Amino acid sequence: MLDVYAFATPNSVKVPIALEELGLDYTLHAVNVRKGEQKASDFVALNPNAKVPVLLDGDLVLMESAAILVYLAEKTGRLLPASGTGRARVFEQLFFHASGLSPAFGQAGFFQRFAAEPQPIAIERFVSEARRIVSVLDGVLAERRYAAGDAFTIADIAHFGWLWRREFAGVGLEDAPNLARWYAEIEARPAVQRAIARVNALVPAA
Amino acid sequence: MLDVYAFATPNSVKVPIALEELGLDYTLHAVNVRKGEQKASDFVALNPNAKVPVLLDGDLVLMESAAILVYLAEKTGRLLPASGTGRARVFEQLFFHASGLSPAFGQAGFFQRFAAEPQPIAIERFVSEARRIVSVLDGVLAERRYAAGDAFTIADIAHFGWLWRREFAGVGLEDAPNLARWYAEIEARPAVQRAIARVNALVPAA
Repeated sequence: MLDVYAFATPNSVKVPIALEELGLDYTLHAVNVRKGEQKASDFVALNPNAKVPVLLDGDLVLMESAAILVYLAEKTGRLLPASGTGRARVFEQLFFHASGLSPAFGQAGFFQRFAAEPQPIAIERFVSEARRIVSVLDGVLAERRYAAGDAFTIADIAHFGWLWRREFAGVGLEDAPNLARWYAEIEARPAVQRAIARVNALVPAA
Repeated sequence: MLDVYAFATPNSVKVPIALEELGLDYTLHAVNVRKGEQKASDFVALNPNAKVPVLLDGDLVLMESAAILVYLAEKTGRLLPASGTGRARVFEQLFFHASGLSPAFGQAGFFQRFAAEPQPIAIERFVSEARRIVSVLDGVLAERRYAAGDAFTIADIAHFGWLWRREFAGVGLEDAPNLARWYAEIEARPAVQRAIARVNALVPAA
């Protein structure tokens, strides 16, 4: 049995999506990041970086959503080509997501919504970077059906996590028709729908 | 023959380090990011994300430094365990670097050095995040000789890139004795020294 510590967050949702796509059983444990539970000592003992998601598979405790995606793909031999250019493209997109899209979206949302005082240069910097990245990804998806080629892979799952929460970043898809087409296709997958329902159910009723 | 487009930057240096460690021949091409050459149309045709480094291996054009590290490790069967927990730890650290350390160091440097007006909340946010990540990594290296376990891997190469440029981020290692011990060991490797010399030689004399 696999255990996943998560919440209804852009990075968390990626892991249940992969697990649902792969047909693996798992138990989902809520870590309410709105209450700061990811900083509690028992959770930090699990992940010293104090972030969701975390995967437990027997003795293995694994942090970092994309590392978990790679682990699950290699464990099952699915959602990641075994070799060749297709495999390289998956890693390229996973790291483009982790180092580019994810931090740009996260910081754009923070500075527009949560900063105690307006930081106009920071807002401009991250909103324009988020839009630039949307444009780059739209260009990728003009050439390919999926993020890394002709097949659905863990690269699509990674990108979907933050695109699902793009309103937080204040980013739309109006000027990104290829990305919008891709998003609609990924969102309609039954496994994706099931995963979203499961992470949303982790949030206590207001 | 492998071709690498790069400059004397934290992400660029990772690729020559891996190539020197692996004993692979390569040609290094300067892309002077101080002059904005990464945004020139011929370079953007190579990498639509307009960033160094880029690797060319025959028909394959690959962006994202960590994706290049994975590609080179799998091409040679070295610097990345083939399976098991050791392999999962390498990916965990690669994504911790890409999504955590690298953007925190980069933004801490930008807001302290380049922002047109002071953005105090942004400076505090990124400097404190950079210091927090140094502390997390120091804890990892209190338990392990290298970033992902007992052996030197591409995870060490990734972390080294930004630690090499930690002054840009205004981050020191005074309170991180394990990280300082690790840094000194990695920096002393002959392959690392050769790679640093080669990327530094890309910078025109002032």
